[in-house]
Amino acid sequence: MRIEALKKQILAKKSFLCVGLDVDLEKVPEHIKAMEDPLYEFSKAIIDSTAAYAVAYKPNIAFFETYGPEGMASLKRVMGYLNNKHPEIFTIADAKRGDIGNTATRYAKAYFKTYNFDSITVAPYMGKDSVEPFLSFDEKYAILLALTSNGGSSDFQTQEVGGQMLYEKVIQTSIEWEGSERLMYVVGATKANALRKIRELIPNSFLLIPGVGAQGGSLTEVAENGLSSDVGILVNSSRGIIYASTDENFAREAKKAARELQSQMESILKNKNYI
Amino acid sequence: MRIEALKKQILAKKSFLCVGLDVDLEKVPEHIKAMEDPLYEFSKAIIDSTAAYAVAYKPNIAFFETYGPEGMASLKRVMGYLNNKHPEIFTIADAKRGDIGNTATRYAKAYFKTYNFDSITVAPYMGKDSVEPFLSFDEKYAILLALTSNGGSSDFQTQEVGGQMLYEKVIQTSIEWEGSERLMYVVGATKANALRKIRELIPNSFLLIPGVGAQGGSLTEVAENGLSSDVGILVNSSRGIIYASTDENFAREAKKAARELQSQMESILKNKNYI
Repeated sequence: MRIEALKKQILAKKSFLCVGLDVDLEKVPEHIKAMEDPLYEFSKAIIDSTAAYAVAYKPNIAFFETYGPEGMASLKRVMGYLNNKHPEIFTIADAKRGDIGNTATRYAKAYFKTYNFDSITVAPYMGKDSVEPFLSFDEKYAILLALTSNGGSSDFQTQEVGGQMLYEKVIQTSIEWEGSERLMYVVGATKANALRKIRELIPNSFLLIPGVGAQGGSLTEVAENGLSSDVGILVNSSRGIIYASTDENFAREAKKAARELQSQMESILKNKNYI
Repeated sequence: MRIEALKKQILAKKSFLCVGLDVDLEKVPEHIKAMEDPLYEFSKAIIDSTAAYAVAYKPNIAFFETYGPEGMASLKRVMGYLNNKHPEIFTIADAKRGDIGNTATRYAKAYFKTYNFDSITVAPYMGKDSVEPFLSFDEKYAILLALTSNGGSSDFQTQEVGGQMLYEKVIQTSIEWEGSERLMYVVGATKANALRKIRELIPNSFLLIPGVGAQGGSLTEVAENGLSSDVGILVNSSRGIIYASTDENFAREAKKAARELQSQMESILKNKNYI
């Protein structure tokens, strides 16, 4: 998908919501569990009930991978459904892969071709030759981990490296990489202050922002500090939407939760004169 | 597998060789390509011809993942064969996963349980809560990326953080983590000098050392600087062994290449009085 199509969708749906598909079979309602492919059926129901309010979906690959080849077959089915039924939706493989050259190209092909995602999250530790292979695919994007919202982010990401924090160094270095116009960045919503500094480094890049809701980030603060001149953020919610209820009514409750977030986003976009 | 069993195997086989299974279907001989599951058949032939000389195998997950659910089914078959036929062998999922809490646990379960590996390579960027979930499985190990052998390792890994290099900071920090007795480390063979500094930080930990051969690392230098009091290193070779020939005789040539490396390792172990 071209980035312009994503931007257009954001304005049309008045939403910058990304729904995280962290499908935990232990939290899936009994009648879904009894089906032949519960990972797929649950994802499909969530997609159907929330697609009017979301511009992106982010399957968490670990939750499929943990079930082996069958889990990956479910992922493929989910992606087939998404791309077929909702071709306007931006898709993110939350895979956090990171390896060099040849191997990185295999991961890129797995997610960009075999599973047909628009983008994949990527880890920076191995440097340039572990990220550039993801940046040579037309209309495909790599979303680089910069500053995450977990406690462990202070172990290395916020350590000082030559007068700046490691995550700033990661961002600044990555700008120079071949194909960097296809780079987006993961920035945790619990770090709203850091968003301002990040926007100075990359005023126009798209940011994928997890951590709103369950993890304690504030949507208003995120918008205040993270919005670019053409919105430029995707705010992810996973558990708050897909497990809004773990009962038979899960899809309806997921819809409500997504609509509520979309409505807050619509207000923000109106207040800031984007729409 | 208990680490003691690995140590015993090293002395018994007089080898600290790990064979990397980066199975590229484009390099596989025609008669294998014509089979129903060439990824499995090629891996099996390599394992059969080299198992007398190797103590560990390291499937590169990207090379299976790129073929979708079918590729992962091949991986499962390879692991079933390895664990069944060669239970003494230490197995490494070269996956370089890295995500937090709940998600990390899913990756750990995928590779430790579903695919039944003894260990998995893990990326450190997200810190403590992205690695500790891998360290709570009995007789299973996480192999943390420290200093890699690619060009991009200078982007971040060798940057100075508070008077030491980032990879040293990673190692030093990781020692404090819960379950760190189940940590091993990836250190590229092209960085033999750094090995000495690393051994000061972690005198007893196992190191997984890729980069000997094709990537230019020297086995002698690696041994000189990396060996611990009970050997404590696994030196990986992938292409140099599995593509020693891309003809029908590939298994025989792989055997020769593995035997040659094993014989060099035997000399080193004898010279250093380990055996």
